[in-house]
Amino acid sequence: MAHGAGGTATRRLVEGLIAPSVGVPLDEPLGDAAFVHVGDETLALTADSFVVRPLTFPGGSIGDLAVNGTVNDLAVSGARPQALLVTLIIEAGLDAEALAAEVRAIGAAASRAGVVVLGGDTKVVERGKADGLFVTTAGMGRRDPRLQLSAETVCPGDRVILSGPIGDHGITILLARGDLDLAADLRSDTRSVWPFIDALASNVGSSIRWMRDPTRGGVGTVLNELAREAGWSIAIDEERVPLRDEVRGACELLGLDPLHIANEGQFLAIVAPEAAESAVETLRSIPGGEQAAIVGEVRADRTSLVTVESGYGGSRIVDMLVGDPLPRIC
Amino acid sequence: MAHGAGGTATRRLVEGLIAPSVGVPLDEPLGDAAFVHVGDETLALTADSFVVRPLTFPGGSIGDLAVNGTVNDLAVSGARPQALLVTLIIEAGLDAEALAAEVRAIGAAASRAGVVVLGGDTKVVERGKADGLFVTTAGMGRRDPRLQLSAETVCPGDRVILSGPIGDHGITILLARGDLDLAADLRSDTRSVWPFIDALASNVGSSIRWMRDPTRGGVGTVLNELAREAGWSIAIDEERVPLRDEVRGACELLGLDPLHIANEGQFLAIVAPEAAESAVETLRSIPGGEQAAIVGEVRADRTSLVTVESGYGGSRIVDMLVGDPLPRIC
Repeated sequence: MAHGAGGTATRRLVEGLIAPSVGVPLDEPLGDAAFVHVGDETLALTADSFVVRPLTFPGGSIGDLAVNGTVNDLAVSGARPQALLVTLIIEAGLDAEALAAEVRAIGAAASRAGVVVLGGDTKVVERGKADGLFVTTAGMGRRDPRLQLSAETVCPGDRVILSGPIGDHGITILLARGDLDLAADLRSDTRSVWPFIDALASNVGSSIRWMRDPTRGGVGTVLNELAREAGWSIAIDEERVPLRDEVRGACELLGLDPLHIANEGQFLAIVAPEAAESAVETLRSIPGGEQAAIVGEVRADRTSLVTVESGYGGSRIVDMLVGDPLPRIC
Repeated sequence: MAHGAGGTATRRLVEGLIAPSVGVPLDEPLGDAAFVHVGDETLALTADSFVVRPLTFPGGSIGDLAVNGTVNDLAVSGARPQALLVTLIIEAGLDAEALAAEVRAIGAAASRAGVVVLGGDTKVVERGKADGLFVTTAGMGRRDPRLQLSAETVCPGDRVILSGPIGDHGITILLARGDLDLAADLRSDTRSVWPFIDALASNVGSSIRWMRDPTRGGVGTVLNELAREAGWSIAIDEERVPLRDEVRGACELLGLDPLHIANEGQFLAIVAPEAAESAVETLRSIPGGEQAAIVGEVRADRTSLVTVESGYGGSRIVDMLVGDPLPRIC
């Protein structure tokens, strides 16, 4: 299960087996989308499978995730999301209304995100050979010329910006499974982040170095990947990381680090120091971005460590996610 | 299960629920790929999920199918296949060597088909929540300017060309499951059909009206879809349809119509009568195309029926596949 969690085991699987065997070039960093030049345009292409359990949860469903997850992979790659292909693997016996609801959710989420569904495929497998519904989305976007993103351009002093509170999605899913005797007024944060990125691109586009959505593995894993790619260390100020009390409480109870919990509608941006305040103001001016914050900075330290500094003057190292505390989160 | 078989139930599901809900325009026929204009280029995009059981079988495996199936959907749409995205849904406990073998199969099939794998995704679900491995491929190709394909251009008198023997894939899978006490020296026909289509485009490109690969639902279903879209009837000469003795025998024993059995490495082309012989010669000149044949013609009859004429002067109507005689064939 750990191989699916988005942390170190996933990375070993992808870098050690999959990428070399299928011929994906590993001299380029593994980003959320691949770029292809077509005439004068640069297209971004990406695909993800979604296996979240349960199929529906407060704030969304597998159909919403499948659309928004792929839309967001395009958006954080600096591409305006445009079109999707959707394939469904359906377990025989899935309630017809549940299927209809997910298909409608896909249509509605695509419409909200401003992307068209071009087509897709459906397969059905016997009862007990899948788990209700798996959805795969492939997305196409056009690279936005206002954004030139690369981990190589990240410099010491750059600020780490987070678009909003972390862990809502992961903890919502955990609670929705009902395995724990816990309840909280919490919803998945699933949404398209393109409106935020579009506004950043307009206001401070040339000052944005890099972006990523911290889904599986959470903020901690994604910042470790960045630190490794950029060759610098990153320091996070724990008190500035937006975190709802419900998520903090659930994590404390379960011994989980909120920095390893999956998000679906948030993103991290590395921004040049002089533009950081303006970037946060831009995000806060958009509904749903009120809690955007500068949460840390890039340090002139070649150890590529991610450290979290607490309010009491202490500091701890946050590693990539190891193992899988919350399987099938997306 | 019938909803996944590619026949009438699949069509009702897609046309009745999925396409309207997600906003796919149904005034255009449902083709194997969608086209998107980017600058001066027209790109073809397509995606399919593969759930074949067992994962490996004589002549191929799920990895081969996933690459060739998507490559062929691009090819028969008149687009040169160029790039793939691949996502894997892995059941926890899948043998590591089986996974490695499929990843290598994907890489090798992509290399043979001349397409690059740009990236993808892996998800893992608990044991018993999938069936070993499901693979989804999304593909991108560039529309080939030598080919202008549309069911609307099909005219009475046009010839129906088939690239090779039918039913090899479906019957191979059926036998590989071992449920029947039958053995035959048969292999899946999985392969890229692009080399054949590339040669046709060079030699008789402007005479090709329409193409399709008869996968789920077989030749009978695909020709019924064409007859409906084109508004003409189609007559097939049963004696001219290439069919191996092993496939014929298995179908007779099991009461299956070879015209409803899935193929993976064959395609149908509708060709103007004056170019039909030349098209067949072109196909036969390429290794693996030796059994290509003219198998029927389009008739000036507005009933949109597909009929099969036997050697004894009789004729029968072949409908779209109803139900699912062979589930999880691809």
